[in-house]
Amino acid sequence: MDAAEFRRRGKEMVDYVADYLENIEKRLVYPDVEPGYLRSLIPTEAPLEPESYEDVIKDVERVIMPGITHWHSPYFFAYFSAASSYPAMLADMLCGALGCIGFSWAASPACTELETVMLDWLGKMLQLPECFIAGTHGSGGGVIQGTASEATLMSLLAARCKAIRRVQATNSNYSESDVLGKLVAYTSEQFCATLGTTPSCAFDRIVELGPLCNEENIWMHIDAAYAGSAFICPEFRPLLNGVEFADSFNFNPHKWLLVNFDCSAMWVKKRTDIIGAFKMEPLYLKHENQESGRSITFTHTHWQIPLGRRFRSLKLWFVFRLYGLQGLQAHIRKQVALAKVFESLVRADKRFEICAEVIMGLVCFRLKGSNELNQNLLKRITDSREIHLVPCQLSGRFVLRFAICARTTESSHIQQAWRHITQLTFELLQEPSH
Amino acid sequence: MDAAEFRRRGKEMVDYVADYLENIEKRLVYPDVEPGYLRSLIPTEAPLEPESYEDVIKDVERVIMPGITHWHSPYFFAYFSAASSYPAMLADMLCGALGCIGFSWAASPACTELETVMLDWLGKMLQLPECFIAGTHGSGGGVIQGTASEATLMSLLAARCKAIRRVQATNSNYSESDVLGKLVAYTSEQFCATLGTTPSCAFDRIVELGPLCNEENIWMHIDAAYAGSAFICPEFRPLLNGVEFADSFNFNPHKWLLVNFDCSAMWVKKRTDIIGAFKMEPLYLKHENQESGRSITFTHTHWQIPLGRRFRSLKLWFVFRLYGLQGLQAHIRKQVALAKVFESLVRADKRFEICAEVIMGLVCFRLKGSNELNQNLLKRITDSREIHLVPCQLSGRFVLRFAICARTTESSHIQQAWRHITQLTFELLQEPSH
Repeated sequence: MDAAEFRRRGKEMVDYVADYLENIEKRLVYPDVEPGYLRSLIPTEAPLEPESYEDVIKDVERVIMPGITHWHSPYFFAYFSAASSYPAMLADMLCGALGCIGFSWAASPACTELETVMLDWLGKMLQLPECFIAGTHGSGGGVIQGTASEATLMSLLAARCKAIRRVQATNSNYSESDVLGKLVAYTSEQFCATLGTTPSCAFDRIVELGPLCNEENIWMHIDAAYAGSAFICPEFRPLLNGVEFADSFNFNPHKWLLVNFDCSAMWVKKRTDIIGAFKMEPLYLKHENQESGRSITFTHTHWQIPLGRRFRSLKLWFVFRLYGLQGLQAHIRKQVALAKVFESLVRADKRFEICAEVIMGLVCFRLKGSNELNQNLLKRITDSREIHLVPCQLSGRFVLRFAICARTTESSHIQQAWRHITQLTFELLQEPSH
Repeated sequence: MDAAEFRRRGKEMVDYVADYLENIEKRLVYPDVEPGYLRSLIPTEAPLEPESYEDVIKDVERVIMPGITHWHSPYFFAYFSAASSYPAMLADMLCGALGCIGFSWAASPACTELETVMLDWLGKMLQLPECFIAGTHGSGGGVIQGTASEATLMSLLAARCKAIRRVQATNSNYSESDVLGKLVAYTSEQFCATLGTTPSCAFDRIVELGPLCNEENIWMHIDAAYAGSAFICPEFRPLLNGVEFADSFNFNPHKWLLVNFDCSAMWVKKRTDIIGAFKMEPLYLKHENQESGRSITFTHTHWQIPLGRRFRSLKLWFVFRLYGLQGLQAHIRKQVALAKVFESLVRADKRFEICAEVIMGLVCFRLKGSNELNQNLLKRITDSREIHLVPCQLSGRFVLRFAICARTTESSHIQQAWRHITQLTFELLQEPSH
């Protein structure tokens, strides 16, 4: 495929993408396939000779679409949202074309530098304490990781490295594994200090945890994977109070800030803590400006497990500028308001109960009654394929999670989803066994 | 931005991308900016209100392009190549639109299943032993990781977990950290068993290493990050002999197989080894088909650090079908042939020497003489910004690496690059100090 054909196929793909997203609610949100469905639909080996583009595109509808769970359908209420917006998609096209692997400053200065500045922009949007902002002279700063899991792993490794060095500094006869066996990681039921847990969007009290961690020399990592985006709204920012005690903080703009996956934002108070754990400098990564010491500040290679890095900050730049802070705040507020709409519908029906305080875009609810009853209700919902939810377990109870996920979800979709749930509930309760 | 505007902006972006790649050789391959250049070009905070798309796009040329190292310029000979092709870019557009986060089979069955089948296709293209192919009943199989570093980390964690369990099975009074302190990782100068090292593209003798590892119960991981793609050509496949002794094997289609970053392919002989180390099953990830045990085979969540996963196998599918195996082989062979052209130019000039056998697309060479002389030559090359190389160190000698990287590099570019190098050499050697 040459540039001329790419121009043609690329424009067709733009239309395909726009058609898909404009008409997504006509597709059933959850697929009706059995495990292993795909293998039988395609050959067992790659073709020797090129196939036509038409054949490939035809197979997108024949092979792929039947097995897609439509995350951006307005009827998708499962897990937490995966952010998606047109500006982010445009930025990703540009990112793919540049195709630079920003593992050092020299490998593409713009890639490293835009990331540092975008994480400063984002940090300021969240009103993070100054110590997390890189600026031109700060000792902290931000980095884009792929996922919150990677950010947590990085924190854990940095914390471990720091603790081992501290112990060895006063007890030089201790080996690394001697110390390792004595290290303790304190976690809640959802691991680290969490703002907005996955099952119920619960918030740890970091203003109480923080001083304790600081006193005891414990590395404090705060994970706000989903809820973090909401802290750009002044009314939600108090939930982040106490972040000043943390050593590292992380949330996922790819969940709720209209930036397509993957883009997990992580800040550390002291870059040296995290860089110290991973420094690695073969000759082929050295460059002139590094040797002068001036661009070390700008290199993210030592902040993460992978060596290669995509130009992900382009997505942030496009989204921040094309929505503006106010546009992003409006998006968050709209989804929280929709959750409140759903909550009030549930509360108005005496057969149901709300199972956790509704703070963000998640409503945890259940039918009053046994876990089995609720499992049966969820099975009917899943089998109908018209809306998609997943469950969680709260204090031993089987609970349904209704998360406002898609950018396109409106009040009408919430009303329709509730009508659907109550209809299935009606049918379920009609059965003799209940 | 609504769908209508995306149609317009998306098509403009397709043209921008095609223009950029068609005219890339007119841009100087290496940027002329100082560390910190970007921060002063943009505001210190995100805008409150949306900006116009025109302003954002104008800033791509004003802010971003001056700081880009053009990896896809035919004059980019640094590091190893970052693969890029139009079919992969089209697939990435589709991936962005679907925006599914394939962390379980149910989260989008097509995402998990296409990946399994594509890794089988690719494994067969490499003629991997049957034990690495998932098929419908295999106990091995493949997974897409982000980078080779992540694949190596996964192998290391799986190997560690397996070794600890083995020791504890016979010595139940050993704690995990007791065992940990006694574990040994055997590495070469470039870490694990490597086929095609980064400095010089050297090959470890895995037919000798393999039986030793098997006898001694050592987990053998083979990293062929760059060179692995070449094994789809029968003439290069013998270099992979011995892979049958390995527990895990990895290479990066995003380096040399025309699949845009990131896409690192990893295979394991026993899925249970790697899944066992990472199993994690909160209720919100459970689904009906998983409970029947039928789709566990298809879930890649436990094969990697991140929970979320993009639909990266779409890129493989598009590229395999639109190039065909023969098209991909032709691409590999062309770049190896171009390296041979450059090698013969170097060999014909008595001032230079070749420093490592030229097997793939990399030529390691230097001026006969001191390291300082070669450092000076490289500095002139870098400062000229017309071609871009990076150095390596081989047995204490400072060596220049000339890697054929871009899909668009032709013999004329190689000739031009050599004329440029010899001209700079001429100027360097004219100076009184030499």
